[in-house]
Formats: sequence, C-alpha cells, structure tokens
Amino acid sequence: MNAARHCRAHSGRTIIERLSTMPTSPVDEQHTSNISYEVLAVIGGTGPQGKGLAYRFAAAGHRVIIGSRSAERAIGTATTIAERIGQSNIVGMTNEQACKEADIVVLAVPFAGHSELVEELAPFLDGKTVVSCVNPLGFDKHGPYGLTVEDGSAAEEAQRLVPGARMVGAFHHLSAVTLWGDSETLEHEDVLICGNDDHAKAAVSRLAQHITGRPGIDAGALRLARQLEPLTSVLISVNKRHKVTAGIRIAGLAHV
Amino acid sequence: MNAARHCRAHSGRTIIERLSTMPTSPVDEQHTSNISYEVLAVIGGTGPQGKGLAYRFAAAGHRVIIGSRSAERAIGTATTIAERIGQSNIVGMTNEQACKEADIVVLAVPFAGHSELVEELAPFLDGKTVVSCVNPLGFDKHGPYGLTVEDGSAAEEAQRLVPGARMVGAFHHLSAVTLWGDSETLEHEDVLICGNDDHAKAAVSRLAQHITGRPGIDAGALRLARQLEPLTSVLISVNKRHKVTAGIRIAGLAHV
Repeated sequence: MNAARHCRAHSGRTIIERLSTMPTSPVDEQHTSNISYEVLAVIGGTGPQGKGLAYRFAAAGHRVIIGSRSAERAIGTATTIAERIGQSNIVGMTNEQACKEADIVVLAVPFAGHSELVEELAPFLDGKTVVSCVNPLGFDKHGPYGLTVEDGSAAEEAQRLVPGARMVGAFHHLSAVTLWGDSETLEHEDVLICGNDDHAKAAVSRLAQHITGRPGIDAGALRLARQLEPLTSVLISVNKRHKVTAGIRIAGLAHV
Repeated sequence: MNAARHCRAHSGRTIIERLSTMPTSPVDEQHTSNISYEVLAVIGGTGPQGKGLAYRFAAAGHRVIIGSRSAERAIGTATTIAERIGQSNIVGMTNEQACKEADIVVLAVPFAGHSELVEELAPFLDGKTVVSCVNPLGFDKHGPYGLTVEDGSAAEEAQRLVPGARMVGAFHHLSAVTLWGDSETLEHEDVLICGNDDHAKAAVSRLAQHITGRPGIDAGALRLARQLEPLTSVLISVNKRHKVTAGIRIAGLAHV
C-alpha cells in the first residue's frame, strides 16, 4: 500500500503516518467493512463539490487529504469537515503534497485553469488512479451549456497530459448541495463511471458505494466523459426551472 | 384544430376524417381525460423507436399516423399496432402525407439521411410542433459514441432547416424494447424535454405523461439536445455491460 511506502520514505512522523494511525469510528467500520483504506486526495477540495465529496469519503472512514493551492485554506476545510464528522481522518495540504501522498487522486477543480493545473501536477499523478469530476460548463442568458473541449472532455484532456495515470470519470452529477447535505446515504442517485482501466473503475465504484449505498455504474470507455460531463448542464437547467436539486438515476438496472 | 381544417380542405372521406370519427377505448378515455386529441405523425414510424412510440401514443387514445418512405410499410406497421391495441385510431401513409395531416410531427428517424429527409419535408413541417427523438450515434470497437453534429444536435439541424417549426427535443432515452414491451406505464423512466417554445414543450410534456404516467421534465433550451441526444450512447453502453435495458430517471424531483 502506498501509505506504508510513504511512511517509510519520509523521515519523522509524516501526515500520512498520522492518517494511518487514526482510528475510524466503530460505526463507520461496521458500515464499510470492505473499505480498502486507500488514501484519497481531493484536489480542489476547498471548492463546493470537492468539499462535499471529501466530507462523504471521510465520513465513510477513508483517509482523506484536502488539496488546495493554499495549504492554509486546505487545512481550514479539513478542520471544518473533521469537526462535522467528529473524526480526524482528514487533513489539508497543498495540491502537490496531496497528490504525492495519495493512492487515488480526485480532481474536483473548475475547468478554467484545468489543463495548467494537471500539467503542473502530472509528475505526481503518473501511475495513480485519477478521478475527474470536472464539468466544463458555460453559462449565458439562455442558461448553462457544455463547453467545447478540444480533447473531447476534461477527463480526456487530463489523460493526454498524464498518459500514465489510470484515468476515470465519475461523480459529475452529485450536487455540492446534496453532498454537503444531511442525508446519510444518497440512495436516490447513481454514480456513472467511465474509463479505460477496469481495476481503476472498480476502485471508484467502491468509493461510489460509500456515497449512494450502491456500486457505481460502469458506463463504458473514458471518451463517454464527453457525455457525462456536460450532462451536468441539463441538471443545472432542471434545477433552475423546477426549484430542485436534480440528480441522475439509471432506470431499469434491477439486474445489476 | 388542423384535423378539421384538413377535413374541409379535402374532398371525399379523408383518412383524417376516418381518424377523427374513430372512437378511442373507454378505458383510455378514463386514463387520459386531458388528451387534446391532436393528430400525431410519427416519421420513421416503421423503425423500432418510432413504432414503439406510435404504439404508446395510439394505446393512450391519440390519433396516430405512421409515416414511412413506403406507404405500404407504414400501413403494415399501423395494422400491427392496431391489432395489438384492439383499436383503429392508427393509420399508415407516406412521410409527406403524414406531415401534411398531423398537428404534431415526431421525427424518429436515423441520423443518417436526417438532413435530407427534413429538407424534403420542410414545407409540411413549417408552423407545426416537431419533436425530434433523433440520436446521432456512432459505433466502433470501443462501443457507442455521440457523433459530432455541425449544428450541435439533430434537433438544432432540423430547426435550421425549418426555422418556422416549433422544435422540441424529447423521447431520446426510451428504448425501443421498453416502448414495445408489456409494461402498461413506463413509470420508472423520465422524459427530458428541451426547446425554445414553451407551448410546444407543454404539449410534448402531456404526450410524455401518456407514456410514463408523469409530465415530461422541461430541461431547458433546444441547444441542450446536444447533451440529451448523445446521452443515449451512455445508456446503450450500460445496457451492453450490465445486460439490462437502461433508462434515465431524474432524482430529487419530488417537488415538481
């Protein structure tokens, strides 16, 4: 496990050693007996979506690192979440540190500046499972719409910039409001997952289960991120018209 | 109502007169008391999706015209549906005739040849509510994917070719198998509707209600067809991986 490797590699008591020795709550252990205890970094973890995901992962017992350009802000958000869940299995660092320490890196950043950030972090993402939740959206007087992305999608852009990453697209449609809300399990929503690496997708599917109570749905190849990412524009449009917080559920999946 | 106008305009007993005097079943009248009795043409009504939609609309009591390049094939499909539902409120005609006679025209045709067909039918679509269910999809060894459409989507292409049509995108995600299946109401699925004309969207929402038991969901402007159309590639991909017939349900809509 990477966490152990990092513990040996660093002198002194690293933040990952702190995370590794932190007990998760007995309640969470019961509910998440199949947790593999990967260390998750949430890049953009101080933004609404990243914070919501980090909260859900930490509450489920994962060791979570909030990444931000500013270590101070990352620590602030991590503290807020730790206080909310009454557990200390979440810490804050710079994005670069967070990527270095993590087994799985979740990119929950705005599309503006996405390619520059991924390029900067590329050396630390190589070989890792990287989950893109990035939604390239535009807004004008007619409402939200999907931006044209040269690589097809943000996830494919990230894959081009880090060819050695096991890139997965997921968690695009869980709203920040719902993630940060009080519902224990978001059982009315589904997490659609795309990617070209089945092992990485399986790991992300387990993460999804900690949020919705069910495994994520393997939707196919990474290029389907071209559909999953801008679908968020439809949900935002529905929210606006119907005064709700809409999510996606796949119907007809009783046999999965 | 257009049907009446057509009856006066034609000499002899037109097919629309036949449709207009056909009783719908008492059961359907009960279940669909708010039917406005528009005449619906389903262009491409001999294909799997068109046939399934025509079946659902006719079973709900609407007067339906199956349109096809070949009147003979259209009549064949209409007869099959009429026999299945034990009602005679469905007939077959050429696409051109069907458009002429209808109040609402549903385009359920393949994307290949779409622009040529719409161009050909444009004079008969002008001023009418036109519902595009067209899914511009490609398939290769990696599975299904959304095609790049110069106008953004098939619905926008049709709108460009018939600027005077009240264009709506809807019914993209109901599978042919489910539509033609035995479930009385497809209550586990939602119909997402996009368009720039609120009256036309409201009419299509009522049509959706006859299929799912609930009004369709207004998803926003017509350009969101860019998201709705290729989303079908995700559903087909999910079907293939999970051996199911997947559909879309919007979560979190309790307040609608």
